[in-house]
Amino acid sequence: MNDEPPVKPGMIVGILGGGQLGRMLALAAAELGLSCHIYCPDQKSPAFAVAASRTIAPYDDQAALAAFAESVDIVTFEFENIPTETLRFLAERVTVLPGPASLEPTQDRLSEKQLIVDIGIPVPPFAPVAEQADIYSALARTGRPAVLKTRRFGYDGKGQAAIRAGDDPVGAWRAIGQAPAILEAHVPFAREVSVVLARARDGTTRAYDVVENVHKDGILATSTVPANLAPDLTKQAMDIGERIAAALGHVGVLAVELFVMERGADRLLVNEIAPRVHNSGHWTTDGCLCSQFEQHIRAIAGWPLGDTARHSDAVMTNLIGDDASRWQEIVGESGARLHLYGKAESRPGRKMGHVNRISPRSGP
Amino acid sequence: MNDEPPVKPGMIVGILGGGQLGRMLALAAAELGLSCHIYCPDQKSPAFAVAASRTIAPYDDQAALAAFAESVDIVTFEFENIPTETLRFLAERVTVLPGPASLEPTQDRLSEKQLIVDIGIPVPPFAPVAEQADIYSALARTGRPAVLKTRRFGYDGKGQAAIRAGDDPVGAWRAIGQAPAILEAHVPFAREVSVVLARARDGTTRAYDVVENVHKDGILATSTVPANLAPDLTKQAMDIGERIAAALGHVGVLAVELFVMERGADRLLVNEIAPRVHNSGHWTTDGCLCSQFEQHIRAIAGWPLGDTARHSDAVMTNLIGDDASRWQEIVGESGARLHLYGKAESRPGRKMGHVNRISPRSGP
Repeated sequence: MNDEPPVKPGMIVGILGGGQLGRMLALAAAELGLSCHIYCPDQKSPAFAVAASRTIAPYDDQAALAAFAESVDIVTFEFENIPTETLRFLAERVTVLPGPASLEPTQDRLSEKQLIVDIGIPVPPFAPVAEQADIYSALARTGRPAVLKTRRFGYDGKGQAAIRAGDDPVGAWRAIGQAPAILEAHVPFAREVSVVLARARDGTTRAYDVVENVHKDGILATSTVPANLAPDLTKQAMDIGERIAAALGHVGVLAVELFVMERGADRLLVNEIAPRVHNSGHWTTDGCLCSQFEQHIRAIAGWPLGDTARHSDAVMTNLIGDDASRWQEIVGESGARLHLYGKAESRPGRKMGHVNRISPRSGP
Repeated sequence: MNDEPPVKPGMIVGILGGGQLGRMLALAAAELGLSCHIYCPDQKSPAFAVAASRTIAPYDDQAALAAFAESVDIVTFEFENIPTETLRFLAERVTVLPGPASLEPTQDRLSEKQLIVDIGIPVPPFAPVAEQADIYSALARTGRPAVLKTRRFGYDGKGQAAIRAGDDPVGAWRAIGQAPAILEAHVPFAREVSVVLARARDGTTRAYDVVENVHKDGILATSTVPANLAPDLTKQAMDIGERIAAALGHVGVLAVELFVMERGADRLLVNEIAPRVHNSGHWTTDGCLCSQFEQHIRAIAGWPLGDTARHSDAVMTNLIGDDASRWQEIVGESGARLHLYGKAESRPGRKMGHVNRISPRSGP
């Protein structure tokens, strides 16, 4: 697949998913002279407003998928929960990048953990929970507090339940809908960081500066760059990102979330992989010459990767639910750039936009 | 008109003209959560691919214009040669910014020059040429070399003819189609610079750093920032920009092109005004937090103006005609960001894209 000719300006990029990530990918593709076709079941997809064409159809509509494949020069996606069959169906007809093989392991929290462990990268203690009875042996492995997570289709804290001292584990099992799950130890990390990197068709990689993240209620609240991280750990984090991207045979942008431990032999533990552009990379639009969105398009298009150098320090703050109603205040603020996703309806926990606050580049 | 309530995220910005400027305005509006409706007679307008809606109709189609006015919350334009009647027709139905009164003087090179002179800002010697016989008296005012330009509808060197020593002036008059014209002295300038600034609804202004421009064959080739210009002249250039914007009652982005003379009482002479986003402001997308496109949207929307501070030095190079075929080389270059306009057909002299090359900010 990597021998395919590169995508050329004027060609059409098909994007599965029409949320804010699809929208920002489409904006970046447009700057490069590419045209976008968004495929999304949701009629109100925010990406439609900035794309040349759209298909509104379910992900299992084979006629719609076949027509979509016919109308585009390459297919990519904005989120990892695209059904595998959809990707495989498309991949028979048109280049799909990242490829299904790179996506599948990350659709299942257990396979994802296994893949990371298999290449020798440490993760917090975990155990599979296939049925209710497994919870007790799993807890013996992880200790408390721990978090029970559905193996599939979780995001932004959905499909998760904490098991703290005194909690009835069965309550957590019921809360996540008794679906196949994984129990993860809640490790006492000092901070959370992430590496956003891209891997090109030829296997070269480029990482952005490591980002320090703060989550609230399971949703990313802020990302700060540069992260407060020692140089050796920074190097190690980037190395982990590269090894994971290579192990997946990934092409495109990939994010790896890591826990930084205060002490111990393994100071960095991988929390999660996202095989796509990632919320913790949103700062790159205003802090780097080549944003993660442009970088993803470059990678899948078969172009050389762009500059990941940080020209400015940045703090990205998500605007969640009613936060976006403060837009007027934000546009009056010096050094701040507002990004809104064009979503008509604000709901609690819904990502409506973000703001990047930049300042002159400090340190290395 | 300036008492209108501000445009809010989710509202629709109507843009007259669907070229690259309309396209980049639409991309900037989308980042702010605004939706765009492009009105353009040309079916192949590059802006259509990044806008939520489009109207393909001539500028004098009153039914189409009325429906357009009905469907948007505010109207702006990407170029100054929109027929006055079109703007007046729309302005009776919806807020149009910049207003027709700010646009009209700049549609006619003679009125433009008169306006500048009237507020005490120097311009190169000029004289009107209404009919063939006027050329000789005009040449007596300007000397040779001089440039004969049609009063209306000129851009990128079109509608212009030079009169050098030994040239037959009547040949120039024929070359520009014997239309009402203005003869301008070709002054021996040391360099060309421009000021791109925005004026908000409340009259506040913010200017970007002064840019140094190089033209080739009457078309902008490169813009470099910072310009090689003494601090007092920089201040004077910005002051000229502000006075012109105020004199026009302008709301939105405005560019003033200036000649810098090596010596003389008046070191800065105004060459031309563009009452819109301008090619010499394209560097701002990658050199500033708030691009000229976002700034224009902020100004017309009734929002506070954004940061014009330069975070990086920049050289913008236009990709004209076949230049764009070098895209592959450019995307492989470090520190360069490619912008392509999505135009299907390359023609000599046609602006196909541009590239911004940035480097760490130097000096003040």
